[in-house]
Amino acid sequence: MTTQEPLCADIDPTKFNKANVPTPALLLDLDLFESNVKTMADHCQGAGVNFRPHAKTHKCPDIAKRQIAAGAIGICCATIQEAEAMVAAGIPGVLLTSPIVEPVKIARMMSLVQHGQRVLLAVGHTREVELLAAAAETANVNVDLLVDVDIGDRRTGVLPGQPAVELAQFIEKHKRLRVCGVQSYAGHASHVVGFEAREKASRDAMAKSVETRELLNKAGFDARILSGGSTGTYNIDSEIRGVTELQVGSYVFMDIDYRVIGGKTSGQNYTDFQHSLTVLTTVVNATHADRVSVDAGTKAIDTTTSFKPEAKGWSNLIYNRGGDEFGILTAEPGAKLPQIGDRLEFIVPHCDPTTYLYDRIYAMRGEKVEAIWPIAARREETKR
Amino acid sequence: MTTQEPLCADIDPTKFNKANVPTPALLLDLDLFESNVKTMADHCQGAGVNFRPHAKTHKCPDIAKRQIAAGAIGICCATIQEAEAMVAAGIPGVLLTSPIVEPVKIARMMSLVQHGQRVLLAVGHTREVELLAAAAETANVNVDLLVDVDIGDRRTGVLPGQPAVELAQFIEKHKRLRVCGVQSYAGHASHVVGFEAREKASRDAMAKSVETRELLNKAGFDARILSGGSTGTYNIDSEIRGVTELQVGSYVFMDIDYRVIGGKTSGQNYTDFQHSLTVLTTVVNATHADRVSVDAGTKAIDTTTSFKPEAKGWSNLIYNRGGDEFGILTAEPGAKLPQIGDRLEFIVPHCDPTTYLYDRIYAMRGEKVEAIWPIAARREETKR
Repeated sequence: MTTQEPLCADIDPTKFNKANVPTPALLLDLDLFESNVKTMADHCQGAGVNFRPHAKTHKCPDIAKRQIAAGAIGICCATIQEAEAMVAAGIPGVLLTSPIVEPVKIARMMSLVQHGQRVLLAVGHTREVELLAAAAETANVNVDLLVDVDIGDRRTGVLPGQPAVELAQFIEKHKRLRVCGVQSYAGHASHVVGFEAREKASRDAMAKSVETRELLNKAGFDARILSGGSTGTYNIDSEIRGVTELQVGSYVFMDIDYRVIGGKTSGQNYTDFQHSLTVLTTVVNATHADRVSVDAGTKAIDTTTSFKPEAKGWSNLIYNRGGDEFGILTAEPGAKLPQIGDRLEFIVPHCDPTTYLYDRIYAMRGEKVEAIWPIAARREETKR
Repeated sequence: MTTQEPLCADIDPTKFNKANVPTPALLLDLDLFESNVKTMADHCQGAGVNFRPHAKTHKCPDIAKRQIAAGAIGICCATIQEAEAMVAAGIPGVLLTSPIVEPVKIARMMSLVQHGQRVLLAVGHTREVELLAAAAETANVNVDLLVDVDIGDRRTGVLPGQPAVELAQFIEKHKRLRVCGVQSYAGHASHVVGFEAREKASRDAMAKSVETRELLNKAGFDARILSGGSTGTYNIDSEIRGVTELQVGSYVFMDIDYRVIGGKTSGQNYTDFQHSLTVLTTVVNATHADRVSVDAGTKAIDTTTSFKPEAKGWSNLIYNRGGDEFGILTAEPGAKLPQIGDRLEFIVPHCDPTTYLYDRIYAMRGEKVEAIWPIAARREETKR
């Protein structure tokens, strides 16, 4: 297991508020966050589908615990560090969704299978299966696997249909390994703009994994799980017969990339979930009449996607990168710029890689810091 | 002061080598790194100019110590965390190059001025000066300042000439504050492609700070320092009369963004410094004939600039982002793709924000890990 000191346990949250948190800082509006957690839980309960939220978004056991408390059957993880942090926090049903082929990481996963509750892995290649089988034998554990089916993303998984069945057959040649379903992520569908177009993209993609799951069951496997979906398609995939659980991630935070895809009933803006996550910044320069600088650049806000950070409560400001340490704000004609020392919160284009830039989340109740949550699984492992 | 546990001190580096370091990992080729450190030190010694390398590139006290040992007169820092980590490591001559206007951070800087050796700050606005003066009074310390002069970047500092002189006059109205020179960063010049064009851009920009320094000295200030320059302009700025020290950063690592600017004598590729920094990755999927996936996406390599990561030793591979966790490699016609489980090292487009994604650097001697260095100043402060 990893040894990680309590990153934030020794910091007194009551000393902090929105006016004195050192910037740049990652803030979570707890009211909006709790609303998001409940909205997704209610939807899944109503639709009769399970959900296993993805921790790659937050890497934060405190958030995972709240998702579990709301009814999630487990937590998806993209890395071994995430899986270790979640199991260490007592989270059940950890599913490693990404392939691993490094023997040391596989051995660490075997330790989690032994010590965690209902830990499972997705696999997409015979080489992974061979490594897992050997490690399972050494560790003397039985391992539950999902067949990772590539339904169009072309980055992980095996092809649907017969190739997936053959991989399942290869898996069960190894007595320590058991197939219990399939996993599919249609990343190419999650951000399709417009609900109808997105629905078509997701249904077309997921049909391949539904069919693959049926083929597996016909071939004698116990493929009881079909895990997939995203925040963008949660209310599409939950209606697809054969999908048993949703791997929703971003809904807890929401970001601009998701807002602009449009909702089922809410038109151009996707308003099912609220922007609970912001980056708090300070204006540190105001030399020029046409711009000010804030202390948040490439190291504070991910800007690899198409959209720009938006200053909350300042509708006519435009953010541009000003290098690694700074952002440059300009104003639309007639609009006012903030002053030096002013503190601005930015809604971010992409929540996952922005969160990754921080060690902690300040969990805010209004202006007050209610708790400081470590982004524990961000850190590199310290296994010796 | 901050309390930070030794991030890597409890990990035995001798257990690691290039074949078993968990990926993605940040590697430093020590032979190339040491060559870079020496090349810059030799150049500055030959040119009769001081150098105060910038820690924003590496955030690593172990690297700063080696820069000091090679003759650097101090270390530049962009954040309070960097300054605290460097002072805690015994680094002298820490210069905070970025503006700060948060009272808590300013109080922390006062503590560094008290406990560090020759700590100084750059300031660019009267508001900063007022806050610093009050904090210096409270802490009962004298503070040395550089006037941060905006010579074209338009993101920090005061305008050159009379505005800078007026700011200096305002500074010295406060008895605890002393002006000891100017700082200028011409970020718009550092990456100009082609040596002659870059030389013109840097000379035009730096002329403004040279003139400002002269104005200050004529006005009775003791402006003995002019700190500026970059890796791209080190051999330009070192020849400018009136520049006393270079704030070079990226030269220790080098990246693609700098390589493509061209050298003074080396044509299209800037070869004064070597690519010592790489990101080690593993091929985790090989389902398709036309591509493989590596475990390094947005969270492992900064891709906000124009260039793409390059696989070392694989000349015909093309890297494209495959989301936050993955990179997709395709091959040029006729070229071979790597296989699942293969480990590839990538030279990165931009070293500073890539380094920021990691907690540690594996310092390699050939295939072996010689040391593991914490990127100590990456972490958010833990001041209570």
